[in-house]
Amino acid sequence: MDAISVIRTKRDRGRLSDQQIDWVIDAYTRGVVADEQMSALAMAILLNGMDRAEIARWTAAMIASGERMDFSSLPRPTADKHSTGGVGDKITLPLAPLVAACGAAVPQLSGRGLGHTGGTLDKLESIPGWRAQLTNDEMMRVLREVGAVVCAAGDGLAPADKKLYALRDVTGTVEAIPLIASSIMSKKIAEGTGSLVLDVKVGSGAFMKNIDDARELARTMVGLGTDHGVKTVALLTGMSTPLGLTAGNALEVRESVEVLAGGGPADVVELTLALAREMLAAAGLTDADPAKALADGSAMDVWRRMIAAQGGDPDAPLPVAREQHVVTAPASGVLTELDAYAVGVAAWRLGAGRARKEDPVQAGAGVELHAKPGDVVTAGAPLLTLHTDTPERFAYALQALESGITIAPQDAASVYGPSPIVLDRIA
Amino acid sequence: MDAISVIRTKRDRGRLSDQQIDWVIDAYTRGVVADEQMSALAMAILLNGMDRAEIARWTAAMIASGERMDFSSLPRPTADKHSTGGVGDKITLPLAPLVAACGAAVPQLSGRGLGHTGGTLDKLESIPGWRAQLTNDEMMRVLREVGAVVCAAGDGLAPADKKLYALRDVTGTVEAIPLIASSIMSKKIAEGTGSLVLDVKVGSGAFMKNIDDARELARTMVGLGTDHGVKTVALLTGMSTPLGLTAGNALEVRESVEVLAGGGPADVVELTLALAREMLAAAGLTDADPAKALADGSAMDVWRRMIAAQGGDPDAPLPVAREQHVVTAPASGVLTELDAYAVGVAAWRLGAGRARKEDPVQAGAGVELHAKPGDVVTAGAPLLTLHTDTPERFAYALQALESGITIAPQDAASVYGPSPIVLDRIA
Repeated sequence: MDAISVIRTKRDRGRLSDQQIDWVIDAYTRGVVADEQMSALAMAILLNGMDRAEIARWTAAMIASGERMDFSSLPRPTADKHSTGGVGDKITLPLAPLVAACGAAVPQLSGRGLGHTGGTLDKLESIPGWRAQLTNDEMMRVLREVGAVVCAAGDGLAPADKKLYALRDVTGTVEAIPLIASSIMSKKIAEGTGSLVLDVKVGSGAFMKNIDDARELARTMVGLGTDHGVKTVALLTGMSTPLGLTAGNALEVRESVEVLAGGGPADVVELTLALAREMLAAAGLTDADPAKALADGSAMDVWRRMIAAQGGDPDAPLPVAREQHVVTAPASGVLTELDAYAVGVAAWRLGAGRARKEDPVQAGAGVELHAKPGDVVTAGAPLLTLHTDTPERFAYALQALESGITIAPQDAASVYGPSPIVLDRIA
Repeated sequence: MDAISVIRTKRDRGRLSDQQIDWVIDAYTRGVVADEQMSALAMAILLNGMDRAEIARWTAAMIASGERMDFSSLPRPTADKHSTGGVGDKITLPLAPLVAACGAAVPQLSGRGLGHTGGTLDKLESIPGWRAQLTNDEMMRVLREVGAVVCAAGDGLAPADKKLYALRDVTGTVEAIPLIASSIMSKKIAEGTGSLVLDVKVGSGAFMKNIDDARELARTMVGLGTDHGVKTVALLTGMSTPLGLTAGNALEVRESVEVLAGGGPADVVELTLALAREMLAAAGLTDADPAKALADGSAMDVWRRMIAAQGGDPDAPLPVAREQHVVTAPASGVLTELDAYAVGVAAWRLGAGRARKEDPVQAGAGVELHAKPGDVVTAGAPLLTLHTDTPERFAYALQALESGITIAPQDAASVYGPSPIVLDRIA
């Protein structure tokens, strides 16, 4: 077996055999297959595809490259959620304690932001004292005692995926559905959850810009989960405008706490409840009532214990950026577009995100929305507030927003109502 | 400009702009674009292609990565030949002195063998004392004094190609016509020849297995040469069976000297003369008579002076392998197939070729043919003689030959005459 023959098979539109897949993933993890060989293979996969059996084997080989976790000793059924990433997507923050409050164990191995989408760990790190890094034992203890844990994935899970993901990031081979699906699912399956709900975002602020690609990705991942004995459901959800009224780190924590307190923006509440219901159903907890758990404060209780268990102070004031800049509406009428990608890039440029993995983020930076698509706005009234510690970034952030805001005459209002959040469900 | 955006352009079936091509070739040569990025781009080019203008710019950028030579100070017109490589392809050896004897200057920057095809430099190095490495000044001096020189290309010519070729070799991205064409032509154009004849091989022992691919490669290269002011012609020639009766290093030198002495196998003589006529015509020497120069010994005179000018002794006995093994005909009839690839692999395994660039070759190793397709053979009579210094290789070489020899009943003789050598001409 050698790298060139594996590359040639896929280059010439052949099927990779189980032996080829097992060998190439293992050899790449061990450094026997070089980066330049794996990137050529990744490009061939991107352009020529893989069938369902190939993707399943590829995923299994990535799982086999590392350790597997096991939650079967927990007294509760486990339910996990994964989002493909969007702008203002703080849903994990209210969702994990909410689902735990309803009786499931929620292990959320999360990532950091890269590019225009934020990262759950970056957001939680804006809470004074909170730390993302836990040992496997610490994680199990928090999960057992609190019911929900959000932490960084350990290095032991799917190391082949870690290495391959970093390679794809610099070689233009990220946008391959087989590779995206196997990357996400190898970590989730290795993690050992019993059930999984996928939030596959669609729209300008998402990875998948159109619903057909999103549906194919969702189907591929649901198939992989099912094949590996994980009860898996996917919701396709809209990401053409930011979720809620904030994009940033501390800004999104504040909004999440509002939701846990029974308030918060309607779209965030709606999506949190929709995902909670799917997770609870997948975990077999069909009698649970997540709306009640939000209203009666039990979700907030779990949140406070979850944050405290990882060193965070749930009562500490959240960091605030040193400088603000208000963007006003250039005309009166109906806000018909507030583009998710534009807002995401603006928040990123303000300091909420990072350009390279090793960059720090600003806890207080981001974008606050004062209106959402469908709202009536008045010329000169505040539309957005930009937050940053480094005001020289305002101009660069404003540039990103330039073509992302559209206001139409008011009589068009009926045409531009808010879009639905959940677009489709794949099970 | 960054590598990922260049990769994405080609990945998404776009045209690379002149700026993208110039930047990526320069940045790769300087190590700013990493190997894993260039291999992903090479795979995207292999699968999505490049148009004529892109290939021309790519070639120009590779030429610009290094020095250019200039033969305009020579009193004679320059004529160069390049073969895409085959089994038993010793044509450069008689051809260079022959064309020089007819009045052209013939600078032959040649390579070493890799895989089943032999290398001109490896062959000439079997002549005691002969050395391949010349400085540019030494090369010009031999060219001026003798009229023909065969030597290794210096490191200064198209360093981008050198680096890219080594990368393609390990990443399954060799078989891309735009990359093959630009690799060959960048070196030939940088070398500064006035005219160029391309010998594009077609068949089992060649890089191009079918005539349509060979024709496309030939057209692409002729276009590139023409666009850069080099008078370029291509012959498509057969490579389904070895050229002549030998494949190896010293074995092929011996056969070449036979041709220069006015003898030698008919196919080698025919192809040598066909290429000589093309080179002389391209160089404007329309009155030259290469057949006469072979017959009257003037080509042999140039050969002797050319070998001596590089330290070789044209009268020294050639090395002979320590061990021989005769393969006899398994049946009587007409030899209908003696597969070039099978013979090439056998010669390679006997020690005539190398598995890795840094391996040595055996001067005496190789395969000697006692019959060619179309010949009548008798069961038990010698068909091939295998030569090696390391007899443990015989079994491995015989394996390669197993399915490469076909003998048909004698009444089929009329159907299986020898194939023509020159299949097409592209100008």
